[in-house]
Amino acid sequence: MKPVKVGICGLGTVGSGTFNILKRNADRITGRLGRDVIVTQVGARRDNPACDLAGVDVTRDIFEVARNPDVDVVVELIGGYEVAKELVLMAIENGKHVVTANKALIAVHGNEIFAAAEAKGVSVAYEAAVAGGIPIIKAIREGLSANRIDHLSGIINGTGNFILTEMSQKGRDFADVLKEAQELGYAEADPTFDVEGIDAAHKLTILSSIAFGVPLQFEKAYTEGISKVTPEDVKFAEELGYRIKHLGISKLTEKGVELRVHPTLIHESQLIAKVDGVMNAVAVHGDAVGDTMYYGPGAGSEPTASAVIADLVDLARTFDAGNNARAAHLGFQADSVSDLGVLPVEEIETSYYLRMQVEDETGVMAKITQILSARGVSIEAMVQKEAKAESKATVVLLTHEVKEQLMNDAIAEIEALSDVDGDVTRIRAEHSE
Amino acid sequence: MKPVKVGICGLGTVGSGTFNILKRNADRITGRLGRDVIVTQVGARRDNPACDLAGVDVTRDIFEVARNPDVDVVVELIGGYEVAKELVLMAIENGKHVVTANKALIAVHGNEIFAAAEAKGVSVAYEAAVAGGIPIIKAIREGLSANRIDHLSGIINGTGNFILTEMSQKGRDFADVLKEAQELGYAEADPTFDVEGIDAAHKLTILSSIAFGVPLQFEKAYTEGISKVTPEDVKFAEELGYRIKHLGISKLTEKGVELRVHPTLIHESQLIAKVDGVMNAVAVHGDAVGDTMYYGPGAGSEPTASAVIADLVDLARTFDAGNNARAAHLGFQADSVSDLGVLPVEEIETSYYLRMQVEDETGVMAKITQILSARGVSIEAMVQKEAKAESKATVVLLTHEVKEQLMNDAIAEIEALSDVDGDVTRIRAEHSE
Repeated sequence: MKPVKVGICGLGTVGSGTFNILKRNADRITGRLGRDVIVTQVGARRDNPACDLAGVDVTRDIFEVARNPDVDVVVELIGGYEVAKELVLMAIENGKHVVTANKALIAVHGNEIFAAAEAKGVSVAYEAAVAGGIPIIKAIREGLSANRIDHLSGIINGTGNFILTEMSQKGRDFADVLKEAQELGYAEADPTFDVEGIDAAHKLTILSSIAFGVPLQFEKAYTEGISKVTPEDVKFAEELGYRIKHLGISKLTEKGVELRVHPTLIHESQLIAKVDGVMNAVAVHGDAVGDTMYYGPGAGSEPTASAVIADLVDLARTFDAGNNARAAHLGFQADSVSDLGVLPVEEIETSYYLRMQVEDETGVMAKITQILSARGVSIEAMVQKEAKAESKATVVLLTHEVKEQLMNDAIAEIEALSDVDGDVTRIRAEHSE
Repeated sequence: MKPVKVGICGLGTVGSGTFNILKRNADRITGRLGRDVIVTQVGARRDNPACDLAGVDVTRDIFEVARNPDVDVVVELIGGYEVAKELVLMAIENGKHVVTANKALIAVHGNEIFAAAEAKGVSVAYEAAVAGGIPIIKAIREGLSANRIDHLSGIINGTGNFILTEMSQKGRDFADVLKEAQELGYAEADPTFDVEGIDAAHKLTILSSIAFGVPLQFEKAYTEGISKVTPEDVKFAEELGYRIKHLGISKLTEKGVELRVHPTLIHESQLIAKVDGVMNAVAVHGDAVGDTMYYGPGAGSEPTASAVIADLVDLARTFDAGNNARAAHLGFQADSVSDLGVLPVEEIETSYYLRMQVEDETGVMAKITQILSARGVSIEAMVQKEAKAESKATVVLLTHEVKEQLMNDAIAEIEALSDVDGDVTRIRAEHSE
């Protein structure tokens, strides 16, 4: 069969990995696919010394790749929103398939991009956009197609998980570990996207759509970062049998889809609580299969390129057959996508970890528990310790599930008590089943 | 589009699950696929009260399903070798696709069955044959297609993992837990297939072929069961920081493929060591992606049916496109499958846990370590405890990697020492990296 002709746009971390693996593992890839996959053009602002570009058609104009008649599939690895979107839409317009690792692009502009691709009869594949080398898009869209999927949760930002793992294992504080992560190259100079949960929310938005059959609604996602998590909270959580992870959680409820990224207590008996360092994992629950989990490296040159190339191979298999032979872009046919909205965070129901400093005298706990119980909040576990300051105590509570709005009201009332000093720290918790 | 017409053969645990999910989740399945999946005939020796068969064409002759012109895909869920093989070959002969959950059939007769299917231009899908609801066949054949996969290991028998988990967590012995597993329905009345590793070897054979591109060679697999694992070994392993799991291990080496199922010490820091109870997990290492792991229920009615239906949906997408639009049966095109054989177990290199009872007197350890070091075996860790019997001691050693033949020789020589009582217990170990 004729070779598959690939144009790679962007020769940075993932682009160079893609280029190099296609060369190194050509025999394996051809062995699986039954035809060669060759790079006919590379579009990049500059060469990358990691790649031997001898004999390769290199252009400084990425748009040339999108117009090149000798390219079947455009691989978009330049990142960002505007130029990437223009490139992808141009490739589609020229009848080319697209493979991208760009989570921000898909989460924000995916609805528009997929509509354009479907109108043109081409496909935009994006396995590499979520959880790096883990084939999680494939698992959800194809592997679990029998299921009514009702919730998923994931550690989908390696930087954040590295920081929390170090805080847990070495008792270090956030700022200290972040600095090291930046030195190691795990975190960007501007770490906002990673530590504030924006990157995770991009990925969660995509997972939520393909799992539940709802449109991409990134702008409605709730995000809360890990910069306020303290070593003290990590330690208290562990005393209660929990780990703190930066989790992306999405659940299907009758009233809407929960779509939220925040620090989360997870019971240590759950496998996902044991996923440490820069590794990613996504747990998916379906009504037929039950609990499943997918684990692997969520970033990096070759892990991400592994997903890019898997998409290339899948696309090549169905070049002649067309989009009907492939899973729908967002997992469901257009007429089966529901318009279920995202549930405001005040409406979610979850458990909470609360930490507060109180006057160490009788009657304080009675006031606090009464405020909680007046809103139907029952307490699952409690720890009380002498605080550093004289005649103060630190109280940590773990509650059962309650609607967030009621918890907000209770916290406001507790903070107003004269026996309680300062703010109440609140971290959401997922109970083991 | 026209509905997909399915004939289900066998209405036991998995057959009833398949039938019921197809009905219950019809909207989701159609929403993903873009066409209905309907059961046009069921072949079963008897009705199953778990299924509402009103209006369904039921036959007592399963072969009628394989001949039925109103059936596009035959789902083989009767199990066993001979009749199942006859049924599958008849379905292929009649131009029908086949979906099966039958690991024994595929591991033993797969080469023949796939050749017949390819000659006829139909496909035999078998996601449900390995690790139940976990989409592991898809992950390896498609999700990791960029990689040179070099090793994989899996907890792929839930019964065995349940027994070892109970032994570890409650200090119970093998026979005691096996009895409970039988009462709970986790283990068969004849537990041989599960506890002796035959079931796991069937699954491992399949995984090994699709990962490395070698033919199915079940008859060459090395299997060792868990019936001889004692609570004492479980406890010693844990003191050394390890768990004992019944692992299927397959590695690609230049001299051949390792294909072995046996009790294995795994360091507690590895995620797969924390997979407990009846759950399954498969860890796969590729040169590009690195370490990945896939976790979920490895058996049961609906988890297994989840995989059966995922295969149905995948097949239906490519009805018109044909086999070129699908991954090759064993992952690689026929001309890319190597004839690499299975390495005899004496040739593998691994680490070992050794336990022996010795006379509690000076000089014994010197003799033992000298026997080991003469064969290049170095010792990583050692525990010595007073044994119950007077003037005896129990010695536990953890070694570095050595060729199994050399270890066999060393053990024979140690057992011949007058200071060593009885046999040396030997359990292979996988070191964390």
